[in-house]
Formats: sequence, C-alpha cells, structure tokens
Amino acid sequence: MDVIANDLRACVEPTESIRFDFNNMLDKRVGYGRGVSAEVLEALRGKAAEALSAVQAARGTGWLEWTELPYQDESILSDIKDAARDIRERCDAFVLLGIGGSALGPACVHEALHPPRANELPAEKRGGPRMYFEDNIDPERMASLLEIIDPAKTCFNIITKSGATAETMSQYLIIRDALQRAFDGSPDWRRNIVVTTSANRGLLVEIARLEGFRSFVVPEGVGGRFSELSPVGLLAAAVGGVDICQLLKGAAVMDELCKQTDIMKNPALLEAALQFIASRDLGRNINVMMPYADGLRLFADWFCQLWAESLGKSVTRSGAEIYAGQTPVKALGVTDQHSQLQLYTEGPFDKVITIIKVESFRNETIIPHAPEGYPADIAFLGGITHNKLIEAERQGTEYALLKAGRMNKTIIVPSVCAYTVGQLLFFFEMATAFMGELLNIDAFNQPGVEESKLATFATLNHPAAKYEAKRREMAALPERDQAYIL
Amino acid sequence: MDVIANDLRACVEPTESIRFDFNNMLDKRVGYGRGVSAEVLEALRGKAAEALSAVQAARGTGWLEWTELPYQDESILSDIKDAARDIRERCDAFVLLGIGGSALGPACVHEALHPPRANELPAEKRGGPRMYFEDNIDPERMASLLEIIDPAKTCFNIITKSGATAETMSQYLIIRDALQRAFDGSPDWRRNIVVTTSANRGLLVEIARLEGFRSFVVPEGVGGRFSELSPVGLLAAAVGGVDICQLLKGAAVMDELCKQTDIMKNPALLEAALQFIASRDLGRNINVMMPYADGLRLFADWFCQLWAESLGKSVTRSGAEIYAGQTPVKALGVTDQHSQLQLYTEGPFDKVITIIKVESFRNETIIPHAPEGYPADIAFLGGITHNKLIEAERQGTEYALLKAGRMNKTIIVPSVCAYTVGQLLFFFEMATAFMGELLNIDAFNQPGVEESKLATFATLNHPAAKYEAKRREMAALPERDQAYIL
Repeated sequence: MDVIANDLRACVEPTESIRFDFNNMLDKRVGYGRGVSAEVLEALRGKAAEALSAVQAARGTGWLEWTELPYQDESILSDIKDAARDIRERCDAFVLLGIGGSALGPACVHEALHPPRANELPAEKRGGPRMYFEDNIDPERMASLLEIIDPAKTCFNIITKSGATAETMSQYLIIRDALQRAFDGSPDWRRNIVVTTSANRGLLVEIARLEGFRSFVVPEGVGGRFSELSPVGLLAAAVGGVDICQLLKGAAVMDELCKQTDIMKNPALLEAALQFIASRDLGRNINVMMPYADGLRLFADWFCQLWAESLGKSVTRSGAEIYAGQTPVKALGVTDQHSQLQLYTEGPFDKVITIIKVESFRNETIIPHAPEGYPADIAFLGGITHNKLIEAERQGTEYALLKAGRMNKTIIVPSVCAYTVGQLLFFFEMATAFMGELLNIDAFNQPGVEESKLATFATLNHPAAKYEAKRREMAALPERDQAYIL
Repeated sequence: MDVIANDLRACVEPTESIRFDFNNMLDKRVGYGRGVSAEVLEALRGKAAEALSAVQAARGTGWLEWTELPYQDESILSDIKDAARDIRERCDAFVLLGIGGSALGPACVHEALHPPRANELPAEKRGGPRMYFEDNIDPERMASLLEIIDPAKTCFNIITKSGATAETMSQYLIIRDALQRAFDGSPDWRRNIVVTTSANRGLLVEIARLEGFRSFVVPEGVGGRFSELSPVGLLAAAVGGVDICQLLKGAAVMDELCKQTDIMKNPALLEAALQFIASRDLGRNINVMMPYADGLRLFADWFCQLWAESLGKSVTRSGAEIYAGQTPVKALGVTDQHSQLQLYTEGPFDKVITIIKVESFRNETIIPHAPEGYPADIAFLGGITHNKLIEAERQGTEYALLKAGRMNKTIIVPSVCAYTVGQLLFFFEMATAFMGELLNIDAFNQPGVEESKLATFATLNHPAAKYEAKRREMAALPERDQAYIL
C-alpha cells in the first residue's frame, strides 16, 4: 500500500518498543537526598492523575490538536506520498525553508533515519534526493546553498504557519528569484515549490493562492514544536524515503501507553513527575539530553525546543509569577564524555541527565587486531566492535554518574527506525504536556518571543505604528557606557 | 613567507580587534538586583588582581604551558606548513581522528574559516581537501566515512596525547587496516598517517616509532582543551588553507590585553569577574554561548568543553568541597530565538547569555523585492539584506533579554578571520584560567572523567587488576528494580 518503496530503515521487529529505565532517578540507587524518594513519588499520584485527566479531557481540542496527529486522515497521508513520489522522481535535492518547529522535527527525523553524511553518498546509496534544512539567515548560508544545488532540479518546501516568519519568507523571496532565473521565464518554476502553512489565514496561504503553489496544511491547533507528525514533518520524511505510516503507528502505540491512569505504567506521566520533583524539590534546573548515537544528535535539538519553549514561562495559568523552566542541554555520547562529563560528575547537583541507549545499529564495525609488538592496551581493543565499545562507554558513564550521586535515566531504543522514532517523539510531547499541567502553566504559548520580534522590526524601521512605538521605547534606554566596551 | 597561498579569509583590516560589551551585565542597565553592581565589581578588584598575578606568575610552567603557544618556535610552524603543503598536494580528503580537545578546536577553526558545507563544494571553490573531524565511535559513522573517501588519497591525522584514548586508537586500527588494503601491501600506506601526540611518553608515540609515522608534538604542559594553538589545531588549519601565523598573532595580541592589571582594561579578567559574581551572588549557574553566525556554531562547542571541564570541580585546591561550575549551553542566533528565547526571557533568572555579533560577513545576501500584490509585511523585506536582518534580530534579542532583566553581554567580531578567531580563542582561555583562580580550583585537571573510563574497561572485561576490582565494585551495586523500567 505504501507508495514509498524503500523504508530506509525497517525496524528489526515491527513491534519493538522503547523502554524507560528510571532506576537512577530514585534515592535508593542514586543516594538519599540526591534522588526522588518513593514517598514523594507516591504523594504526587493524585496531582499526576489530575494532570493526566486534564490532558486527556482536552485532547484534540484547542492547542492539543497534536494529540490526534497519529490518527490523521488517510487522505492527507496519501497526498503527502503522492507529492513525495513526484519530488523523488523529478528532483535531486529537497530544501526545507523553515525555522524553529518547522525545521527541527523534519531535520531530526531525517538524521535519525538516514546514514550519516547522506548528502555526500552516491545517489543510489542515499536512496533519495539530497536533503537540506535551512533554518538560519546567516548571509553566507544561502550563498553556499546556491553553490551546491541546481534550483531547476530542487524542490523547496516553505514552512511557516502564519507566513509572517521573516526568516523563512526572506528565504522564499531569494529562492523565488533564483527559480525564476533557473526556469528562464517559464511558469514551471512554481512546480518546484511546495508550501506547508495554515489552511485559511496568514500570509503564506495568500501567496500560495496567488502563485498557485501546491500546499499542505498545518492544522490550526498544532503549534510549531508539536508539528513534526503533521505535514510539516511528514512531507520531508516521505521525500527522504521514510515510511510515514510507521512513524505515526509508533506515536499511536505510545499514545496508548500514555493514557494509563497508574503512574507506574504511564512512562510520559512518570517522566513528567520525576522532572517536576527534581526541579521543585531538588533544584535540578538543568535537563541534559544525551543520546549515544550520532543519528539522534538532532533529536536532542528537537527536544530542547519542546522542553524550553513549552515550559519556560513566567506566570501560571492564573497569572501568578512562577519563572519556571528547566534549561535543556544537548549532549552527545560518547563525544561529550570528553567535554561535559567532568562537570556532570563533579559540578553542582543541578541537573538530570537523560541517556538514550540504542541497542542495535545498522552497521557492525569491528576493530581489527593490532600487529605484533603493539602496546597491550591497544591490542586489547582488537576484535571488539564499535557497537560493544559505545555501549560499554555508555555503561561507564551511567555508572560514574550514579556513583557521583547524579540523577540520570535511560531511554532504551531497540533500533532507530520510523516506528521507534514515532514513539520517542510522542513520549516527549506527552511528557511536556503533563509537565505543563503539573506546573499549572500554559505549555502551548510563547509570549516571550514577541518582544524580540517587535524590536527587530522596529530596528528595521518598519513603518507600522506598533514598531514606531517600540522604536521610541528603545531610544529611551539609557546610553551604553563606552567604558564598558573593551 | 607563508607557504600556504590562499588564506581563505583574510581580515578586512589586519589589525581589527574583537570587543567586549558588558553593559548589560550591570545592574544599572539590566535592573537592580538582577545584575552586577559597580560596588561589587569594585570590591572584587583585589581578588581579581591576585588571580591575574597568579596566572602571570605561573605562565609557561606546568599546565599553563598553553599561554606560550602564541610564541612557539618558527621551526614548529615551518614543519606544519611543510606537512600541510604535502597533504594538500597528495590528498583530496583530510580526516582527523580525535575526541574532546583533540577535535573540538580543529573543527571549530575549520568551520569558522571556511564556507558552510565546504565538503560539498567543488574542489576549486573549497580551496583544499575535504575535511572530516571524527570525534565519535558511533558504529555507523566509520562505515559512512569509508563510503565517501578514498583512503589512498586521504591523510589521517591521529591525535591523542597519551595514546590511551580508546575511541581514537580503535579508529586508528580500523583506518590502518583500510589503508593497508587500499595500498595492497605496499608500505606507502604509512605516508597517509600523521600523528600528533606526546614527544616521549604514551602509547601513540611508541606506535609512531614502530611504524615510522610522521609526527607532531603536543607539548607536555598543554591539556587537550587548551591545545588548539598547538600542532593539534595548527596542522588541520594549515591543511585547510588557514594562515596559522595570523591565528597565533591574534592570540598574542589578546595575550597582551589580558596582562593589563586594571580590571577595567583587561577583557578576560573582567569576563571572569562578571561570571564569578553572577554565579556566586546571583545564582546564575548556566552560561549560554550564542553566536549569530553559522560559522561560529562549533566555536560554542569548543567553548562548552573549555568552561565545563575546566571549572566543573568538586573541590578547591585545598580540598574543600565546592561543587563549582556553570553549565555551558550552546545556542545559535537567530535559529534558537525560535527554540530557546522564550525560556531565556521568561524562565528562571539562572543564566547569563553571551551573544557573539559578527559585523561583516563574506557575502551580502540581498532579499529580492516581492512582486505586485504580495502582502505588505512580506513586501517590506524586499531590498533588505540577510546581513541587516540577522543584525536586527540580534539587536531584537538583546533588547528583549535586557527588558526581561536577563544578564547578557556581547562579543563583537569585526569579521571572522584567522586573526580574530585567534583572539576569541585566547580570550576565553584566559578568562577560564582567571575564573579558576577566583574559584580557587584546579582548572587544568579532570579527575571526574577517570571513573567512567575505569567502568568502561571493566565492562569490556579488560584483564588488568584495577578493572577487575572495578568489576567487583559494579557487581555489588543493588539490582535495578524491574518495576522501574517501563
């Protein structure tokens, strides 16, 4: 049924499930006073049950529309697969123009489900077009992109729900111009653009109608950071050859688990409860995400937006000051053992470390035996695999953290495939929603971003009155002291 | 005189200097109680002067040998340039095998001084071999590397001072095998390996002698995270076409500034003093590094190791418990405005944000005008450059942080070139040394990393007695509760 033939990474077992090992979050393992006690966790059951009820009662409505994405219409998926097939046939590059939630999810899923450095592999080994996720406006970046792609053979997916995202829309204008030149006046350039935006409101849908671009819909109640399983993420995934049905199936399976009323059977609710206690009672204001797999590096980036933007809030839903929000930190095993582990084991008791363990990689890399005469400690490595070494190092880190009394937990991923990635995404989305409830904050808005946007347009001399007012406000700031610029 | 012809990025002005604007760290701008007061800074002068004296008294000795790297022997530089010329002539790829300080500096300098996605550019636009920095043992990574390089035309630079780094040495054994096969029995494979290691002790120098590899020296008193300006970083830089003399000259110029006894004239001492006060008095346990330039993304990674591993210490030099260390966080402007800014402006008052502003980029990217009939807010972008937009967004973020009472500061980089990168590196190295003095900790050791190494080798069943003891210790750990694995 699936029109995309080659799921680049089939699950070893189509039923395999991620697991959540939170032993090392509990004081009986990590040390009394340094972890969560069974009593405190028990005492949170009532509050956790309320959080679960609130999320389940609101699911599918308002800003919780994302909870229904695992079950979206077959017709949407079918359209996405059609578009993906067309793009895979016509194009040798796919460029996503978007920023924040419009890029982090698609880039994360792409990296997770493709070989490292896929763009440098020959086309037949890559199994699809080269993929670029353009989420910044560094002036050197667009120039370099145009050096390495042929716009005439590239599909550009412009993603912004509102169409008001200056970064993305400025990229669009640059690409529009490049495409028109590449097509030398022919209106066919429009075939190389696909937009993903609001169905009915906003500037991009207006432009899409004007130009006649193919378009996909970001549902109204799906915010950027919860949009990966909507067309925002699914089109790029399908173009890359990912089985998007498996992605959604993984999310749906996790959704079922996350409906369990017993906190000891509901992994996302438990994750939220543990982080809530860690930050409320134990001063853990830092949340480190440390996958032991290059392919999950951008998963950490995706998670960092989800956690930071959802939970970093100054007021509760009733308007009381709270200034909540753990700071998420991305790390990579084993690399960051040689960079951050010293701090994690000896620094302040201010963080929780989430390790992601991958049980089975796509390759087995065997370390050859050393020749005669080599030092014994090097010879010892011969015959071991990188698979075994990375896991031994992960265990070493986990043990070192535990011995130093540092709260940590492990997400176990049997193998990284569309099905398990779907589970991972939904697990952390649900945990974020539950954490928002426990904190009594609105996890779905982002009022703190507005000020910077106003100030940016004021700086650019936008003529609208609100920016004029902002310019006056900015001009009224006390002068910088020149003695404080060295 | 310089044998490397094309410095890929000459400074706009060979004398241009980075500047440090710390206005927004001070309470008179960021808000009373939310920043450093002039009185507290004034009161720290004595302690800061002592920190300066201690560093200057110890410079060039013990673990402070890195302070003399800007002045290292011309003969060393000349050897590096010779090797680089040879590699540039013979090879179309350069692969650095190293981890932690052996990779972060070289990768950071490479990214800063080359166009984005340099490996995908045609050779003539890249101006040198493709460059790969292999700092992990993900089993899929080495496999992918061997898909995209031809070992016979690749130089492998193996970097580990002790030669005992399991990750790097395992990579070496894999590459040794691949090279022998590529050279079909000819001993010429050895010409494709260059090692950078200790002059006299350790396993790699032993192997280099045995095999007859060309080698460069990591000076004994230069630790990994302070090694970028040693041959560790200089060879990769020279192979990439960077003018290494400019890099060192930049560091030397910064060194002069950082000898100033007046704290108000010594940028690194001031940086350390401000961070010291922020963490001691104001609870700022998080230090965000946020460059507004794709090319400085890995600079943030380099900085994160420097700050975390140097300052994350459990005891003072006299053995008293301290559990010091801000957690460094890497962010990227403008991208992370759409991910982390909500948290930075509305979350806890627990962080200091360091912004890096680049005044002049290599490209000017103009946003074309929108056609008739486009919405006014999109049309407004036409004619503006990405250069102007990224700077307006940076100002917007700075203003939003300030208005929300969040401590921030800006490093101003006139243009990213070898000379200014040398300044940047040395500035943060000196600030780290001063911060270590203010905290009275040893900024140059990393005792917390040992435990994880022992546990790793114990897990791998290494037969040595110390690992056997560690295995017994690990086995004595209470069992994991299976109910805590969901």
